[in-house]
Amino acid sequence: MSVTVPSGFRAAATKAGIKPSGNPDVALIVRDTPSHAGFGCAMAFTSNQLVGAPVIIGRRARAAALAGKAAVRAVLINAGNSNAATGRQGVLDAEACMASVGTALGCRSDEVLPSSTGVIGRPLPVAKITAVVPSLVAGLARGESADAAAAAAIMTTDLVPKTARIELAIDGVKVAIGAIAKGSGMIAPRLDSATVTPPTGTMLAFVTTDAPMATPGLQAALDAVTDGTFNAISVDNHPSCSDTVVLLSSGAAGDGKLPPIATGSAAHRRFTEALREVCWNLANQIVVDGEGATRVFEVLVSGAPTAVAARAVAREIVNSPLVKCAIHGRDPNWGRIVTAAGNAGVPFDPDRASLILGAVKVYERGVPLIAALDDPCLGEHLASKRIAVSLELGAGDASARMVGCDLSAQYVSINADYTT
Amino acid sequence: MSVTVPSGFRAAATKAGIKPSGNPDVALIVRDTPSHAGFGCAMAFTSNQLVGAPVIIGRRARAAALAGKAAVRAVLINAGNSNAATGRQGVLDAEACMASVGTALGCRSDEVLPSSTGVIGRPLPVAKITAVVPSLVAGLARGESADAAAAAAIMTTDLVPKTARIELAIDGVKVAIGAIAKGSGMIAPRLDSATVTPPTGTMLAFVTTDAPMATPGLQAALDAVTDGTFNAISVDNHPSCSDTVVLLSSGAAGDGKLPPIATGSAAHRRFTEALREVCWNLANQIVVDGEGATRVFEVLVSGAPTAVAARAVAREIVNSPLVKCAIHGRDPNWGRIVTAAGNAGVPFDPDRASLILGAVKVYERGVPLIAALDDPCLGEHLASKRIAVSLELGAGDASARMVGCDLSAQYVSINADYTT
Repeated sequence: MSVTVPSGFRAAATKAGIKPSGNPDVALIVRDTPSHAGFGCAMAFTSNQLVGAPVIIGRRARAAALAGKAAVRAVLINAGNSNAATGRQGVLDAEACMASVGTALGCRSDEVLPSSTGVIGRPLPVAKITAVVPSLVAGLARGESADAAAAAAIMTTDLVPKTARIELAIDGVKVAIGAIAKGSGMIAPRLDSATVTPPTGTMLAFVTTDAPMATPGLQAALDAVTDGTFNAISVDNHPSCSDTVVLLSSGAAGDGKLPPIATGSAAHRRFTEALREVCWNLANQIVVDGEGATRVFEVLVSGAPTAVAARAVAREIVNSPLVKCAIHGRDPNWGRIVTAAGNAGVPFDPDRASLILGAVKVYERGVPLIAALDDPCLGEHLASKRIAVSLELGAGDASARMVGCDLSAQYVSINADYTT
Repeated sequence: MSVTVPSGFRAAATKAGIKPSGNPDVALIVRDTPSHAGFGCAMAFTSNQLVGAPVIIGRRARAAALAGKAAVRAVLINAGNSNAATGRQGVLDAEACMASVGTALGCRSDEVLPSSTGVIGRPLPVAKITAVVPSLVAGLARGESADAAAAAAIMTTDLVPKTARIELAIDGVKVAIGAIAKGSGMIAPRLDSATVTPPTGTMLAFVTTDAPMATPGLQAALDAVTDGTFNAISVDNHPSCSDTVVLLSSGAAGDGKLPPIATGSAAHRRFTEALREVCWNLANQIVVDGEGATRVFEVLVSGAPTAVAARAVAREIVNSPLVKCAIHGRDPNWGRIVTAAGNAGVPFDPDRASLILGAVKVYERGVPLIAALDDPCLGEHLASKRIAVSLELGAGDASARMVGCDLSAQYVSINADYTT
């Protein structure tokens, strides 16, 4: 189970005929009418300048929720069409779907959030979606079957569904977080937060919890974790127009008897850490299932002047096609790693920089350690499924990590023939 | 002929045993002892933070030349080892090679510029290089055979040698520019200039001219053209630690009777335009021969707030693996292009943006033109060897172009097994 592990949520999925494969392509996650004090919603979206209609509507919904107006209680997700680069008609189409769900659930349409992933620049097949809304709503259920159906329906080029769950105790009451996600290509999220809009695949993640948390505290928790989790992965360095994370709370834990969790409290910090674990778990599932990926590599950049600089260097390394091909080929061609680092616009002195692959130092304070290339541990580590790259810049105290995947011939075949 | 078309230059190449293939791997280009008024040298180097020993020495040589001290008159180029990430020993190794050439030519060693391309982080095989220097010098010659040998010796993963030449008349005197270049992978030059060090493959280009121009005017001409030519191509978005352009003048045109060309004169402007043509020609040869490339695409971004913003958007498009795979697959999946544009950090309103592929408009002021996807001209254009992508942002008057190449399975196989 995943999104319906937390009390107060139900899910369903079905086929609307959007995916050419004919596979299930529409999912619905619904929080039941709240009977408890602490419920709310939080969201994070892509920072791409060009965003899909669902993101335009989602930003509006986030602002409304933070202003104490309607909180999202249902998310309608479709795969196969992103409803992006579709102009004003795209927004009208999404609103028609929201209205359809609102009617079927008996709630306001602005309590429904649309979310779409798939081909860009094609009109959303609204009639196909609204036609299945009644059966979706009728099929809402808790349990493994509903959760698995929802996780599968939102997949595009994903090979496997992605789910996560965690449980913690707050004041002796069991609180749960459940989640589903999708993403394999167009993955390099730079999610915004409710307060700042910094930098932007399509990755979608839907997280539920029965913790009693209102919108502001929920958004604070989400904003605290996105940068170190979803924003720390890259498959292809191409942030999507549709990246979206939605976090809904029901407040139903312990039959609704747990008092609301205040922002800044120890309980809030513990919830945030549990949320971070769920999001990092999902982010790693996405990069492991990156298009064509056969292995992943985690880059830790330390000794940077600032955390932003460390992130920039790590990002340059995980996104270099030359580094990605070397990782694919188990090739100890570490010159590609240190030169990628040199392209991040971050000043450092190569004579103070060192590089470790796995546990083998190959470059120390500007000097290549030639014998390291013959260390059997190096070849063994490069053949593993998760390579550790550790670069010390010697230019400060800040650090950052990013996880990328290798670049394979399979990646090219997946992407050279996607729409046609 | 190429580098020895201009009077006053000779070239040679041989095998030093650096390339595992056993192919020729060392070349020498030499300006004969000047007997004329206008001679000099100009250079541009990578902006990578980590640079090879030859670039460290080259920057020093450029400063010396601009200060009126020794002007470079010989360039010793080796392929198969970049002498980068080799620490202080790398500089000593390069200096040993310079001294060897200086002795053989009877000139000062600081009139010799080293230039290296190949694997990173391995000691330069100095003894192999100095062993062949006497025969290189003895073999210096003008003509097709010497030029072709030099162009071939500097290749790494290049499939074809790259040469260019142009002739112009200045005051009735025939002036020539000749050039050789190499580059196929680690290509995304961001060359600096003598005055500013902005942003950085290994691409190497060696340009000769018999125009009578001293170092300052020669450097001004080079600085004027690099950004719009070499810096406007990308194979893999990974600027190298070794990118180098060297321009040498002999002043020997018209038997040395042409007076020196003054910076700012009409003759200087005409020379600069001819140089731009040679550099753009070479840059295009490099991207056409990009690793694994089957076609190239030229991205013109117009309507941007500034030229820098236009370049940033064009760069984001040519470097997106998703766009590169779509170009490879002749796939009209233009949503990847507009979303790549949205990731450049340049603000624009999608409702004012339009996209043309070849001569077919597919997106107009934020609205997808669905019928365009059925236009036979679109499919025909996407099957051509050079695709034209024109994106109008509607956010200003500035424009920029960049040329990239497609991403193929062949790219992966070339790069997943390079050192091992």
